[in-house]
Amino acid sequence: MSSTNALDVLIQALRRLPGVGVKSAQRMAFHLLQHDRPGALALSRALEEAVGSVHHCTLCHTFTEAEVCGTCLDPERDATRLCVVETPADQSALERTGAFKGLYFVLMGRLSPLDGIGPKEIGLQKLMERATNGVVQEVILATNFNAEGEATAHVISEALKSRGLHVTRLARGVPVGSELEYVDLGTIAHALVDRR
Amino acid sequence: MSSTNALDVLIQALRRLPGVGVKSAQRMAFHLLQHDRPGALALSRALEEAVGSVHHCTLCHTFTEAEVCGTCLDPERDATRLCVVETPADQSALERTGAFKGLYFVLMGRLSPLDGIGPKEIGLQKLMERATNGVVQEVILATNFNAEGEATAHVISEALKSRGLHVTRLARGVPVGSELEYVDLGTIAHALVDRR
Ligand SMILES: [Zn+2]
Ligand SMILES: [Zn+2]
Repeated sequence: MSSTNALDVLIQALRRLPGVGVKSAQRMAFHLLQHDRPGALALSRALEEAVGSVHHCTLCHTFTEAEVCGTCLDPERDATRLCVVETPADQSALERTGAFKGLYFVLMGRLSPLDGIGPKEIGLQKLMERATNGVVQEVILATNFNAEGEATAHVISEALKSRGLHVTRLARGVPVGSELEYVDLGTIAHALVDRR
Repeated sequence: MSSTNALDVLIQALRRLPGVGVKSAQRMAFHLLQHDRPGALALSRALEEAVGSVHHCTLCHTFTEAEVCGTCLDPERDATRLCVVETPADQSALERTGAFKGLYFVLMGRLSPLDGIGPKEIGLQKLMERATNGVVQEVILATNFNAEGEATAHVISEALKSRGLHVTRLARGVPVGSELEYVDLGTIAHALVDRR
C-alpha cells in the first residue's frame, strides 16, 4: 500500500483479525489514519487493557475480569440447572431471552479435531467436575446446530450420561415467525421429529 | 457479550473499524482473547506506532514516515507527469502495473459534499500549486470510475484546464480477459466511445 514501514506493520497486524483480508486491512488502516486517529488510539488501549485484565471465570470459563464472574456469583440463579454454550456471545443471546435462570458452562469453542481442538481444549474434564458437584440436576446442551456443534453436544452428552446425569438439548424446530414454505427441509424434518 | 467492562470497551473500539458491526466485533474480540493474545498486543502496538509516526508527504499527500515520501524523492521518476489518485491503495495498484514512471498526487479521498468532503479536504489548492510548478506537463486523472470519482475528476479537470494544463483521464473500456457477453453495458458503451 505504501512505502511506510509502520503502515505495513499495521496492515499485517489488522490481517490477524478473523475475516480480514489484505483489502479490508488496507481500508481499515487508511480509515483510521486518515479519518479516525483517536479511534486508532482507543483501539490500541482497549486491546492492551483487555489482554491485561480479561481472564476466564474459574467456575464457568467465560471471560471475566474477576476470579469468578458475576453470573456465577449471583445467588438468585438456579444452581440446579447448567447450560453448556460454545461462546460468551451464545451465552449473551440466551441471557437476552430471559428464559433461563440457571448457570452456565462456556466451552470457549467446540470440538474440532482437525483444528486440534479436543476434549481438553473445551474443558470437558472441568465440565464433568462442575456437573457432578451434587447440586446440578440437569445439564442443557446449547451448542450450535451445525455439524461441529452437534458432534460436541454428542460427546458431552455421552460423557455426562455415563455419570448418570440428566442431559437435555435445546429443541430443534421452525423459527418463530417463519413461513414453512421458506424454512429448509432439514429443519422441518427435525421439527416433525421433536413435535410436542 | 459479557459482564466484563474491558471486553465491552474492546468490542466498541473494534466497531470503529469500517465494515465491522457488532457481531464481527464480538467475533474479533473473542478470537483475539481466546486464540491470539500476542496478535492483540501486536495490533495494539502497531496502531500506536502508526498514529505516532505516519504523516502525509508534503509533496504528494500520501502516507509517509518522512517529510517527503520515497516516490517523490526518487530521481528516476518522470517529474513531467503527475498522476492523481484517490488513495495510497490506488497508487499502489498503479505502481504494480509498472506502466507509470511519473509522480503522484494522492487526494486521500474524493469529493463527497454530503460527507463534508469538499475541494479543501482533497487538497485541490495544493494540487494546483504542484501542477503549475513549471515542471509538470501532463496531469493524468486516475480517480475511480464511479459517480464520486467521476465528479472529482471533473472538478479537478476544469480547475487545471483553466490554468492551461494538459489533463488526461485513464481510458474506460473492457477489462483485459473479459468476454463481452459478461461485461456490463455501460462499460461496453464507454469502450465504443473511447475506441482507439
Ligand atoms: Zn462464571
Ligand atoms: Zn510524496
